[in-house]
Amino acid sequence: MNTPDCTAQHDAAHLFQALHVRGQPLVLFNAWDAGSARAVADAGAKAIATGSWSVAAANGFADGEQLPFALAMDNLRRIVATVALPVTVDLESGYGAAPDAVAANVAAALEAGAVGCNLEDSFPVDGALRSMEHQVARLAAARRVADDRGISFFINARTDVFFQAPASAHDVAMVDAALERARGYAAAGASGLFVPGVIAEPLIARLVEGSPLPVNIMATPGSPDRKRLAELGVARISHGPGPYRGAMRRLTEAARAAMA
Amino acid sequence: MNTPDCTAQHDAAHLFQALHVRGQPLVLFNAWDAGSARAVADAGAKAIATGSWSVAAANGFADGEQLPFALAMDNLRRIVATVALPVTVDLESGYGAAPDAVAANVAAALEAGAVGCNLEDSFPVDGALRSMEHQVARLAAARRVADDRGISFFINARTDVFFQAPASAHDVAMVDAALERARGYAAAGASGLFVPGVIAEPLIARLVEGSPLPVNIMATPGSPDRKRLAELGVARISHGPGPYRGAMRRLTEAARAAMA
Repeated sequence: MNTPDCTAQHDAAHLFQALHVRGQPLVLFNAWDAGSARAVADAGAKAIATGSWSVAAANGFADGEQLPFALAMDNLRRIVATVALPVTVDLESGYGAAPDAVAANVAAALEAGAVGCNLEDSFPVDGALRSMEHQVARLAAARRVADDRGISFFINARTDVFFQAPASAHDVAMVDAALERARGYAAAGASGLFVPGVIAEPLIARLVEGSPLPVNIMATPGSPDRKRLAELGVARISHGPGPYRGAMRRLTEAARAAMA
Repeated sequence: MNTPDCTAQHDAAHLFQALHVRGQPLVLFNAWDAGSARAVADAGAKAIATGSWSVAAANGFADGEQLPFALAMDNLRRIVATVALPVTVDLESGYGAAPDAVAANVAAALEAGAVGCNLEDSFPVDGALRSMEHQVARLAAARRVADDRGISFFINARTDVFFQAPASAHDVAMVDAALERARGYAAAGASGLFVPGVIAEPLIARLVEGSPLPVNIMATPGSPDRKRLAELGVARISHGPGPYRGAMRRLTEAARAAMA
């Protein structure tokens, strides 16, 4: 196993940053442990991203920061030690409300070898949005952690604007609300904008056009495919819980066949 | 999450013991974490067994007791808390040579909620067989752990006789060597006999006929299928690393498709 090395981590973070190109999206097929990270790496992946839902489920927990943070960090360390790829970690809503708490947890992720993290702007309890001011302060605190160490770190600012309403109610006003947040998040030091839940092509197009940051979309059964997301200018595609759910569905089927 | 309860564990261990019926084999589709255990349970499994190879791989370790024992126990606790089924744990060669060390680790597994364990008679370093006398002492020490607590515990004594030679060299003399060990292991308090590596039907038949303990065979690509193993009188079928490898192969394929 490798131990994270500061220079190597800085270089990996730079490499990871460079993989975000509008129109040539980085595909992150989210992993949940060292073994699944290796399986995704074996497919030729350029980077590994954890998915919090999957990590929680693999360990018998519900999503929403129910998984003990120490376990998330142990898991991250094992992934970093197992694959020779940049690893970004899903930190959900930062496992704490105050900017200082978020900063401490980002520091832990950085020390565990992550080259970046996801930080979302909704509350883990009910999914409601935090105020933009508060999320800006939290993102700024996260950025200072990396800046104080003089190293590169990809902060993927996730906004859950589109999770506040069903897909049928998604509209241009929601894109504009997401873009307002994107500008604030970019000014606070975010590296990317992750907008899960948006699937309508015109809305994705407007989002990409107006965003000061490379845009990350979540691939779901209803979303445009990879080629179409590329044409729309998306820079990163995540798969969230999909890979885990698919693998476990297959496992259930295989177990059923073995007992038949 | 449930916490293991002594009476419940004792009852679950009795249930687990009763699932070992010659000719009606209990199928254990080996799991590696809480999520995979839940996926196997969803298929209608009657019990959950961990597979050490898979648990190690999922955490980025090689098999052969490279995985820290504390991690194996934490993982076991999470599985027990997640599924409402008896859980048996693969303890490899007991994570220690001396009978006392084996006993301490069996006690830890018992306290973590396991209703049984696998204990193998080969050395983790090179797979060579321990002397029969030594393994008998180790199994007797494991049995005393459960007896001292007055509870039921299924000790699946694994003999690696057939791993000492390629399948083409397997013969009746090896069956007889395994049976000699089986008699010693049964006298020491073992509950079952696990003989991985044997795939020839006449050898399995002779093994079942001569064994004082219910026989556990490992399903591999070359072994007889479930129905045939049932006809041969097998009482338990394990799948070892197969379920994990299958799930990870599928994950790699799905990741490749997502990037194509």
